[in-house]
Amino acid sequence: MWKLIEAAWIVTGSADGDEVRATPKGAVAIDAEGRILATGYREDVVAAARSPDAPEPAERVVLDRHILMPGLVNAHTHAAMTLLRGHGDDRALQDWLQNYIWPAEAALADPEFVYTGTVLAAAEMLLSGTTTCADMYFFPEVAGRAFVRMGLRAQLAMPVLDFPTRYAADADGYLRANLAARDALTDEPLLSWALGPHAPYTVSDPTYRRVLAFATELDIPIHTHLQETTDEVASSLREHGVTPAARLAKLGVASAGLVAAHGVHLDPTDRTLLGKAGASIIHCPSSNLKLASGFADVAALVHAKVNVALGTDGAASNNRLDLFEEMRLAALLAKAVSRDAASVPATQAFLLATRNGARALRLDDRIGTLEAGKRADLVAVRIDTPAATPMFDPVSHLVYVAGRGDVTHVWVDGRARVTEGRLAEGPRVALAECAGSIATFAGRVRALRQ
Amino acid sequence: MWKLIEAAWIVTGSADGDEVRATPKGAVAIDAEGRILATGYREDVVAAARSPDAPEPAERVVLDRHILMPGLVNAHTHAAMTLLRGHGDDRALQDWLQNYIWPAEAALADPEFVYTGTVLAAAEMLLSGTTTCADMYFFPEVAGRAFVRMGLRAQLAMPVLDFPTRYAADADGYLRANLAARDALTDEPLLSWALGPHAPYTVSDPTYRRVLAFATELDIPIHTHLQETTDEVASSLREHGVTPAARLAKLGVASAGLVAAHGVHLDPTDRTLLGKAGASIIHCPSSNLKLASGFADVAALVHAKVNVALGTDGAASNNRLDLFEEMRLAALLAKAVSRDAASVPATQAFLLATRNGARALRLDDRIGTLEAGKRADLVAVRIDTPAATPMFDPVSHLVYVAGRGDVTHVWVDGRARVTEGRLAEGPRVALAECAGSIATFAGRVRALRQ
Repeated sequence: MWKLIEAAWIVTGSADGDEVRATPKGAVAIDAEGRILATGYREDVVAAARSPDAPEPAERVVLDRHILMPGLVNAHTHAAMTLLRGHGDDRALQDWLQNYIWPAEAALADPEFVYTGTVLAAAEMLLSGTTTCADMYFFPEVAGRAFVRMGLRAQLAMPVLDFPTRYAADADGYLRANLAARDALTDEPLLSWALGPHAPYTVSDPTYRRVLAFATELDIPIHTHLQETTDEVASSLREHGVTPAARLAKLGVASAGLVAAHGVHLDPTDRTLLGKAGASIIHCPSSNLKLASGFADVAALVHAKVNVALGTDGAASNNRLDLFEEMRLAALLAKAVSRDAASVPATQAFLLATRNGARALRLDDRIGTLEAGKRADLVAVRIDTPAATPMFDPVSHLVYVAGRGDVTHVWVDGRARVTEGRLAEGPRVALAECAGSIATFAGRVRALRQ
Repeated sequence: MWKLIEAAWIVTGSADGDEVRATPKGAVAIDAEGRILATGYREDVVAAARSPDAPEPAERVVLDRHILMPGLVNAHTHAAMTLLRGHGDDRALQDWLQNYIWPAEAALADPEFVYTGTVLAAAEMLLSGTTTCADMYFFPEVAGRAFVRMGLRAQLAMPVLDFPTRYAADADGYLRANLAARDALTDEPLLSWALGPHAPYTVSDPTYRRVLAFATELDIPIHTHLQETTDEVASSLREHGVTPAARLAKLGVASAGLVAAHGVHLDPTDRTLLGKAGASIIHCPSSNLKLASGFADVAALVHAKVNVALGTDGAASNNRLDLFEEMRLAALLAKAVSRDAASVPATQAFLLATRNGARALRLDDRIGTLEAGKRADLVAVRIDTPAATPMFDPVSHLVYVAGRGDVTHVWVDGRARVTEGRLAEGPRVALAECAGSIATFAGRVRALRQ
């Protein structure tokens, strides 16, 4: 039992090296367990996948006007905040957080809010070609159940703070709740786990140390916000005498297991220490621009050997969960920021959005590229529209030309989640079940806005 | 004979003032000649539009999950270059022009190239919600016929250079050919005209003076590139002792009739003189980033009372003709560039993409807003997708959330050009007729790339 997906082009990075391969008349063969059997030229793939028991595929999908690529990895988001889409537009980070987001969360962010918002976010991500996200939000067990229901791969960055929310009262409480959440869902194949101390400006040294001890014990990443604004850096220098990155390094948190969102205001020393540590920066260009946080220097981060991946951040500061948009923006911005039109060319932008995201989440043995043995997380993008004509380079097209509206098919773990631009039945039903709850929460947000 | 288009929301600016009005349960009534009869709340519109002869609309379109808005104005593009989409990616402006674009144009840019590329560009623009473009390219008569065939409103910025191309040999030749082009198409209601001296670095003072004399005589705008790169400014200071903007001012070209593309590197004096002159800057954010030209300071331009509108530039440096993308990018970039998250809020970005574009082209008595008496250039955007849920502010959604993929219906001059996301029959047939020619030119570009 195997299935064959044929496409006009297959585009993928590889686990090693920075080459991106575009194969015309390609195919991917998938086994019954959702594993990639073979990928490359169609004839080679069929030859590799067939067996005496199964000489022909059980299912054949022909995408002859499409590029097939690895699913996009949204390496930093707050899925449930999709219910706050566009709440507090046109405000700077601290105003936005303190006067819009935190009050709304205090009023609304209970488990039903998290389940509903996460289902809605997962629908948006699947439809726009994202197959994996790293989600940082309260009630990760509830979010995990929503992701499983929708069939989206997720890494739950379980939140840790030093102040109380509806989810927990103090660092101990967060850690206890998080460990219970992980235990409850430990066998779900689509889920993986990280600890998510919010940010250096909200988490104390002792709490970071405890998080590090647990993360080391469980062998999971630490996902945190880092140097998003100049204010954050200035207050760290004032209070700790060092930048937040240097502080994390002193605490032992800056390592290959560090997933640091934003990294807008890093100095050369910060970049060098993060690169040497093997840490990842999750670049969130739309959010950084919208909150006027500034311009991350992606070319310099790449030069310092930091693993750069991409994220949407939450829908309240984006206002989309659209990784195609972030990929294009990352490629365009890097050129103007570095004053070099050759910075972050299309091939590199493509790797940021796929393989580097998998690396950041330490899932690169399973996803991020199309290679035999990996999980079948695939996206098909149509190229038969006027806007995609003519095409001279499929990789350039994926980065500069394609958008979420061109996504036609999505598979996660070998299962169809989007077909012909529509959600498959499972996620469609799960989303429909939330329609009433979405409307209720939207009404409650509207009441807060008045 | 009148038709009624009903929508969940109507969003429009007005000719005076910077308010953007969002009307729930709205409608637009259009007469048989493509003029807007009334717009606003549905009941009021019906009451205003009905007459004893025609108490009911002849046609009723119900868009109950959509926002209806004025068509977007792409105020700077080179439509035919769509056949060079993505040619010379990841190169700086002068390398890109001299080693990729100009050689390809020398080899290919004949009238068939212009017709074919313009038809393709018009299809992309219509499908993404643009109803008017300002096009600067060779053989404007041919381009004009393509726009008329596709039913897209266009202002033809007829090119003037001091060096020979396939179109003409010298300034005299360009002017002669341009006047003949305009005479040939003078009665086409969708077309308007401008003179398009390429740029201060390719056009001499005497030629700008001759262009000004003709533009004054004909009462049409002058459309030119301006201060796109630092090199351009430096060489002007070296050769002319002043910035290009100051040079244009000395020549009398900087006036309310000036449509200046880019304006990336303008100093405060340049901005003040352009603002006082009533000139327009056409901000092209994707292209400016992709060519590493830099960041236009849109907030400062607006503050100096320059009329800022938006353009895609050509598909070779974008690689899209997608004004929704430019609108979002303009709003996001302005915030980070000015370090103020309140810069270019959604309402202003919306005006840049609609009313200000109409003003730049001096077509604001006809298009750019939805008001009785104007031409019916309309776009419907669906808001029933997961990515558009929930919605707290329709204007914010149009800028930060919506994209070309959400455009369902487009009318130009009252005629349906896109319905349910597909081109209407007229433009669809015109595009289909070009399929062979598109493939031929794509093959010739591929040959040049080898």
